[in-house]
Amino acid sequence: MRIYGDSISGNCLKVKWTADKLGIPYEWVETDVLKAETRTPEFLAMNPAGQVPAVILDDGRPLAQSNAILLHLAEGSNLIPADAYDRARMLEWLFWEQYSHEPYVAVVRFQVRYLGKAPSEVEPRLVERGYGAIQRLEDGLAGSSFLVGEALTLADVSLVAYTRMAHEGGFDLAAYPKVRAWIERVDRALGI
Amino acid sequence: MRIYGDSISGNCLKVKWTADKLGIPYEWVETDVLKAETRTPEFLAMNPAGQVPAVILDDGRPLAQSNAILLHLAEGSNLIPADAYDRARMLEWLFWEQYSHEPYVAVVRFQVRYLGKAPSEVEPRLVERGYGAIQRLEDGLAGSSFLVGEALTLADVSLVAYTRMAHEGGFDLAAYPKVRAWIERVDRALGI
Repeated sequence: MRIYGDSISGNCLKVKWTADKLGIPYEWVETDVLKAETRTPEFLAMNPAGQVPAVILDDGRPLAQSNAILLHLAEGSNLIPADAYDRARMLEWLFWEQYSHEPYVAVVRFQVRYLGKAPSEVEPRLVERGYGAIQRLEDGLAGSSFLVGEALTLADVSLVAYTRMAHEGGFDLAAYPKVRAWIERVDRALGI
Repeated sequence: MRIYGDSISGNCLKVKWTADKLGIPYEWVETDVLKAETRTPEFLAMNPAGQVPAVILDDGRPLAQSNAILLHLAEGSNLIPADAYDRARMLEWLFWEQYSHEPYVAVVRFQVRYLGKAPSEVEPRLVERGYGAIQRLEDGLAGSSFLVGEALTLADVSLVAYTRMAHEGGFDLAAYPKVRAWIERVDRALGI
């Protein structure tokens, strides 16, 4: 498998971490978003959405969208709960991550760390919704060690990616002790 | 099952269409987003994200996020491809829908139809990305009748929801013949 990814992107790193955790061999092809390497004709032929991560599977077929790649790689592994309801809750977190977490936590971090904005220059709505997403994680961790029960699932892999980098966007996690303990727990489980 | 949904929302209607297609009985609980009925303490106790659709399954347990609900309801049905790669491509479309289609096509339509903006008053970036998403569908339909091969899957159910309403936001589908034919095909398959 070849993983086309940008090492500064949590969406890309989560694919790497999942492959590493599952012992799936791969070649990492560093693909620089800031240099528009996802917009070349060659790249667009592989992923018309022009986004990383994208993978070329062992049989030569392409696949994109970080969480879809995670689900494909982890099929049949213990990163996906066997119980149908637990699996559905994991999927709920994965879709929520892309709609209500990444567009705020990751976007603010990108603007601050890579576009050189001061945290005070970022659109307040983005910061507010980022904190809202972090609070939702804090609440979601009230009764369990991981997001879906007591074992690591793809929900944790996916959501830790940008949460563990949130401080780079100026987010202060001091008021979110469960989130901080969970980040350490997931990092340990993934060996990162 | 109880479905909490707003009848003006494509995200909610796709849950209804999937349940209807699969013959799953349900009670529809109309929940008005514009009247903030998703922000009451009762609603937030069920779905802390404060979003519709949300369902209460037959055993009383809640589930949210439209595409996670679709995947749960359709498990084991022919709306999910049996082939692992086809299933992964379906998931790729589902995640892409929430990240790169809904935030543009649905948001523009909401602003025009329900907030009373003229199409010319909508932020041009949103319209441009909406057309980009529609073009991506047109390209995705170049070699097949449905988004994943020759049979209806959840990818079609999910993506048709706001695409069939795009004209309400001022999007003109005249230049997208494959998308228009696909909408008719999916509508027929769903009986809507």
